[in-house]
Amino acid sequence: MTTYQITTELSTNRKQKTPAEQLGFGKIFTDHMFVMDYEDGKGWHNATITPYAPITLSPAAMVFHYGQAVFEGLKAYMTEDGEVQLFRPDRNFQRLNSSNARLCIPPIDEDFALEALKELLRVDREWVPTAPGTSLYIRPFIIATESYLGVNPAKSYKFMIIMSPVGSYYKEGINPVKILVEQQYVRAVVGGTGEAKTAGNYASSLKGSEIAAQQGYSQTLWLDGKENKYVEEVGSMNIFFKISGKVITPALNGSILPGITRDSMIEVLKSKNIPIEERAIAFEEVVEAAKNGTLEEAFGTGTAAVISPVGELKWLDDVISVNNGQIGEVTQMLYDTLTGIQYGKVADTFGWTVKI
Amino acid sequence: MTTYQITTELSTNRKQKTPAEQLGFGKIFTDHMFVMDYEDGKGWHNATITPYAPITLSPAAMVFHYGQAVFEGLKAYMTEDGEVQLFRPDRNFQRLNSSNARLCIPPIDEDFALEALKELLRVDREWVPTAPGTSLYIRPFIIATESYLGVNPAKSYKFMIIMSPVGSYYKEGINPVKILVEQQYVRAVVGGTGEAKTAGNYASSLKGSEIAAQQGYSQTLWLDGKENKYVEEVGSMNIFFKISGKVITPALNGSILPGITRDSMIEVLKSKNIPIEERAIAFEEVVEAAKNGTLEEAFGTGTAAVISPVGELKWLDDVISVNNGQIGEVTQMLYDTLTGIQYGKVADTFGWTVKI
Repeated sequence: MTTYQITTELSTNRKQKTPAEQLGFGKIFTDHMFVMDYEDGKGWHNATITPYAPITLSPAAMVFHYGQAVFEGLKAYMTEDGEVQLFRPDRNFQRLNSSNARLCIPPIDEDFALEALKELLRVDREWVPTAPGTSLYIRPFIIATESYLGVNPAKSYKFMIIMSPVGSYYKEGINPVKILVEQQYVRAVVGGTGEAKTAGNYASSLKGSEIAAQQGYSQTLWLDGKENKYVEEVGSMNIFFKISGKVITPALNGSILPGITRDSMIEVLKSKNIPIEERAIAFEEVVEAAKNGTLEEAFGTGTAAVISPVGELKWLDDVISVNNGQIGEVTQMLYDTLTGIQYGKVADTFGWTVKI
Repeated sequence: MTTYQITTELSTNRKQKTPAEQLGFGKIFTDHMFVMDYEDGKGWHNATITPYAPITLSPAAMVFHYGQAVFEGLKAYMTEDGEVQLFRPDRNFQRLNSSNARLCIPPIDEDFALEALKELLRVDREWVPTAPGTSLYIRPFIIATESYLGVNPAKSYKFMIIMSPVGSYYKEGINPVKILVEQQYVRAVVGGTGEAKTAGNYASSLKGSEIAAQQGYSQTLWLDGKENKYVEEVGSMNIFFKISGKVITPALNGSILPGITRDSMIEVLKSKNIPIEERAIAFEEVVEAAKNGTLEEAFGTGTAAVISPVGELKWLDDVISVNNGQIGEVTQMLYDTLTGIQYGKVADTFGWTVKI
């Protein structure tokens, strides 16, 4: 680990905390943020924790024009013992560097990034909400700041971490969602940026969500870009199906985001001796299973919701109901296990939590 | 056309002009810029021409995280008669709206945008360089400004136009470029964002350029994302081949940018009775033509270079020389015709130029 000195400037004007029931998601930010600069020839430098404030950039800053921007999402949880803990944060900074490599952004020092995050959490510790189901959402991101209109990797960047206290994702119990299988638009293709967490991936996904919403569906199931046949992701989550007692999820083929929650679910399933397979899944196989009564459960996984049960799938003219629109047994067990570990209520036999 | 009032605040601190031979591309900006804001419920408003200056955004501005950003590129030319003219600017604002639609960004008023650009050009008229081959590069762009970490279309945006005087693209005559055919990475796929001018498309293309540069090639030829077989674009240009006296270019299939220079080349070719076909082109066809001696010319087209002759193509282990690395007759004719029209030296029988 490279040793960088972090300069801390504390806010003299602390914000009022929002009551837990009004938190929502990603609208309220803590008192401080972490910022670090990169310049060609100088490397990453100027690590600072400063009061949360707007940033000023040239209108020609390359992030506005050529989309060199990557990000991560993770959460800090308050345990019953009053300790703040993170869930597999090393994986997030590892993946941030994979995303960097794909977009020709210089790598960050992963160990230092985690130290910086811990320091930021110590400074803003009182912002970690304590009500059941609430947490502190953490957004590390990197943007190209060089003022230049040429299509080249930028020569300067900003690496920032901002944090937002978020409400309980499931306020009234877990309600399974209705998903539309997208036919016209594509999220990613092998050789593209689908396995990286780039800003552009999310911009291209908006159209699918719009189409789903117009038809009364809350999310999009994406099929592969080559054959429009194999299941890739759902919304911005990874997806799992339980068919005839076996759990299956698309293998990481190069166009699917390697979700950290996805990986954790697979580990939990293995530890419980529930069969789990990572492989290509033609959507027709899911339709077939629904028709012959062997499709038992379906769920998406991601940091925000942890798990999102799928109650209905629409594909062309077929409407498929999953488990009568109810959350399934395995889905519930995975949710309880993972959130249990995250909030320190279930013993972390995997070594996934990191206390600050 | 909606009538918006443009508020103009002139700069009191005019910058020194850079000598023509030091202009380069996209690093120097004029004294003013155009800015217009969008807010849900209020629409586009607050059209202003102000001194060119940095912009201040929340670190949670959605453009940094979810890449909702689109842009255009066009040029203003100084004619020998001392008039400033644009080349098909209506097409740029039309395409900006197509890009907006793809990324769920609210449309702009195309006619008003052109009026605003003309007004900005009147204010910064003295910035249009006069030396041969120089021009004023114009960059309209739109970015999502809402401070929110949810994956949704933003509720607020900025539409801006910035301008940069640029040097002659070909200082020492037109030198054909060496192109590497990319095998691993993909620019776009049908159903993705390839036919829109989104920021994210350019970020994903950087890796290909890096690989090409490492092998001594200056640009990437992109094949299609489904079969890795058909020619799509070269670098950030459209591509044409001349085989056995006939010019061919990939048809606009949904993953190729509908270039305005591309369209203009096709019109010029038609007007000269040179056969031109838009269709799918397997790269193997180009290799075959090279081997049997019928590949006569190859060139890329785009706003920056107008035309960029291809002198060499590398595909796997095959190295293909095109026209002995020299610019071809048709390529030269197209370059002369188009730049002639743009600089007012050739009669514009197409009605493409717009005087300000």
